[in-house]
Amino acid sequence: MERDVFFMRRALDLAKKGRGTTSPNPMVGAVLVRDGEIVGEGYHRKAGEPHAEVEALAQAGERARGAELYVNLEPCCHYGRTPPCAEAIIRAGVKRVVAAMADPNPLVAGKGIKRLKEAGVEVVVGVLEEEARKLNEVFIKYIITGRPFVAAKIAQSLDGKIALASGESRWITGEPARVKAHEFRSWYDAVMAGVGTVLADDPLLTCRLPGKRKSPVRIVVDSGARMPPDARMLKCEGGRVILATTERADSERVSALMERGVEVIKVPAAEGRVDLSRLMGILGGMGITSVLVEGGATLTASLIKKNLVDKLLVFVAPVVIGGEGIDSVSKLYIGRLSQAPRFKFHSAEAIGGDLLLEVYPDLEREEDSCLPG
Amino acid sequence: MERDVFFMRRALDLAKKGRGTTSPNPMVGAVLVRDGEIVGEGYHRKAGEPHAEVEALAQAGERARGAELYVNLEPCCHYGRTPPCAEAIIRAGVKRVVAAMADPNPLVAGKGIKRLKEAGVEVVVGVLEEEARKLNEVFIKYIITGRPFVAAKIAQSLDGKIALASGESRWITGEPARVKAHEFRSWYDAVMAGVGTVLADDPLLTCRLPGKRKSPVRIVVDSGARMPPDARMLKCEGGRVILATTERADSERVSALMERGVEVIKVPAAEGRVDLSRLMGILGGMGITSVLVEGGATLTASLIKKNLVDKLLVFVAPVVIGGEGIDSVSKLYIGRLSQAPRFKFHSAEAIGGDLLLEVYPDLEREEDSCLPG
Repeated sequence: MERDVFFMRRALDLAKKGRGTTSPNPMVGAVLVRDGEIVGEGYHRKAGEPHAEVEALAQAGERARGAELYVNLEPCCHYGRTPPCAEAIIRAGVKRVVAAMADPNPLVAGKGIKRLKEAGVEVVVGVLEEEARKLNEVFIKYIITGRPFVAAKIAQSLDGKIALASGESRWITGEPARVKAHEFRSWYDAVMAGVGTVLADDPLLTCRLPGKRKSPVRIVVDSGARMPPDARMLKCEGGRVILATTERADSERVSALMERGVEVIKVPAAEGRVDLSRLMGILGGMGITSVLVEGGATLTASLIKKNLVDKLLVFVAPVVIGGEGIDSVSKLYIGRLSQAPRFKFHSAEAIGGDLLLEVYPDLEREEDSCLPG
Repeated sequence: MERDVFFMRRALDLAKKGRGTTSPNPMVGAVLVRDGEIVGEGYHRKAGEPHAEVEALAQAGERARGAELYVNLEPCCHYGRTPPCAEAIIRAGVKRVVAAMADPNPLVAGKGIKRLKEAGVEVVVGVLEEEARKLNEVFIKYIITGRPFVAAKIAQSLDGKIALASGESRWITGEPARVKAHEFRSWYDAVMAGVGTVLADDPLLTCRLPGKRKSPVRIVVDSGARMPPDARMLKCEGGRVILATTERADSERVSALMERGVEVIKVPAAEGRVDLSRLMGILGGMGITSVLVEGGATLTASLIKKNLVDKLLVFVAPVVIGGEGIDSVSKLYIGRLSQAPRFKFHSAEAIGGDLLLEVYPDLEREEDSCLPG
C-alpha cells in the first residue's frame, strides 16, 4: 500500500505538469512500474494530444507487459479525440491498474474500470483520492454541473482591507505574491472583474510571466456597460474580452465596445444587475470551465452571497491599514452570525512575506444554512 | 553540534513548563548530561523557588561531576532571592556549560559566563538562540526597557471583522480558539481592554480553564471613567482590576469604582485620552511585565498607531461577515500605503477550524517609517 502511495504521488506530480494547458480535459499523469522499477511515464499535455496512459505505454514499449499502471484518474473507455485508453492498456498486457479516483463524469464513470476487469486486469481505485480530487477540482465541477469552477482571489491586509480610503493599493502584497497571482491566471480559463475595478485600476488582467503562458479570457461584469472603450485591456494583445451586461445597458455604449472587439453577452438581470448565477451557466455553455475572480469587493461579495464561490484564494499581507480602508468583501447584509457564509481552511502557505490561504465553502454547514440562494 | 541542539531543545521544553508562573523571572530549563546520558533535569517553577540549574544539580547529585549543563539562559552570578547558580555549577564540578543566550539584563550580561570561564568551565553560548529569545520575549523586553511586553489579541473573520454591525460576535471563532485565548490569559501578567468593550460585552477577562491557572490583573482603559460600577468583572472573584483614566474623569464616578475595589491610576492625557505610552511606563513601574490586549478595535488601533504593540495574536475564522461588520482595527488615518504599519508573520497554526497567526512588528522597516511616534 505504501508502494502504491509512492507511485501514485509520482503520477500526481506528472499530472501537474499539464496545469494550465489541458482544459477542458483533466490533468492526468501515469506511471508504469515493473519489478519495482519505473519503465514508463507520461502526462496529458493538452486537449487533443495523447492521454497520459498512452504516453507511458509508448515509453515502456514491450516492458509494459506484466507491469502495473498508476494513474490519477480512471482510464477512459470511449472514443473522444483519442482512442480509449482502457483498450491500449489491455493490449499492452498491463496486469494491474491503480487509479486515484473513478471518472467523475456520470456518463462514463466506472466503465473504464469495468472494461479492464472484464479483460482480467486487477484494478484498485482510491489511492490518494483526496489529492486527486483537489488537483482536478475544476474538471470535476465542470463535468458534473456544466458550470465553471469559480475561485475568488483577494489580496488584503491583515485587517481585511484591499486599499486605503484613497484607493491606493499598490502594493499591499509583495512581489512573490503578485507573481503567484499571475501564475493563477495561467491556470484558469477566464479571469473576471467587476466594472468598478476596471474603472478604478484599468487592469490588463493578462498573465505576464516569462515563457509562453496562456492568458485567460477576460470577463468584465458590467450591468450598465460603463466600461470605457479606451480601457487598457482593449488595447493590448491579451486575447478575448467578454462584457457581461444587461438589457438596460445603453446600446451605443455597447456598440462602441463591440467595435473595439469586445464580445458582449446580455445576461438576464436580478435586481437590475447581471444575474451572476445565470452568467455562470452561460459561461459554462461557452466551454469556460474555470473562472478566477479578481474583484472588486462588490463582485466578490455578490458571488459569496449567492454561494457561487468554489474557492477563496486569500493573500494576506502583514500590514495593517485600519478601519478607513476599503473592505475586501462589501456588505453582505447578514442579520445573524449564524447566517454568515462559513468556509474551511485548506492550507496556509508563506509566499514571500505574505500568506496565501486556500479556503473552501463549508458544504456540510451550507445545507443547514438559511442563506437565500 | 547536533548533540548540543538535541539537549538544548530538551532544556527549552523544560523551561516552557514554567510558563505563566515564573513572572517576573524568565522561563529557564536545565539538563545535565554525562557520557551522553541525562543525569539531571530541572526548570524554574516560580519566582522565589530554585533556579533550573539548581534543580538539575540536585537531581544529578555526584553524577554532576564532569557533566555538561544545557540551559536556555546564561546562569546568574549574583545573589537575588536565591544564591548565584554559577557558583553552584562550579562547585558541582560541571565541565562544560552550553547556554542558548546571554543574560539580556545589561547589568549582569556576560558576568555568569565570565565567572564560569575563570573557574575553568568550558562555555558555549548561542545554541538555539532564536528559540530561546522568543520563549523569553516578555522577560527580555521588560528587563531592557522596564516596560511591559504588549501582545494584542484579535479574533476576526476572514475579512477582518470582529462582529456584525449589530455587535453580535458570539462566536466568530470556534471553541478550541477560545480555549487557547483563555490559555494566553494565564501566560500574561495583565489583560487590557478599552471601556467600549466593557460597555458592549461586559467581559470577565479572567482565565477560566480547568486547573489552578492564574488569572491576570485586569486593566480597563477608560479616559472618562465610564465603566459601570456593576460591571461583571467587579462582581466575580477574579483578582485585581485597574482602571486607567485621566484627570477629566468625574470624581464621583471614580469614587464609586474605587469603593468596588477598583485600583484607579490617573494617567496624563494625550488629546484628551489616556496617553498609552505613559500608561505602559506606569504599568512597568508597577511590576507588570506583560499585557495581553483584548480589544476593542479602537484600543488596538491606538496601540498600533503608537508602535506600542510587540506582537499581534490574530485568530482568523473561516467565515465572511462582509463590509457592514465591525473592523478589527479602527481608523488609523494613514495617508499613504508606505506609512501603514508593517509586520512580519512568525507562524500560522490551525487551532480547531480556525487559524492563529503570530505576527511581529517589522522593526527593520519601522526605522525608515515616517509614522508619528
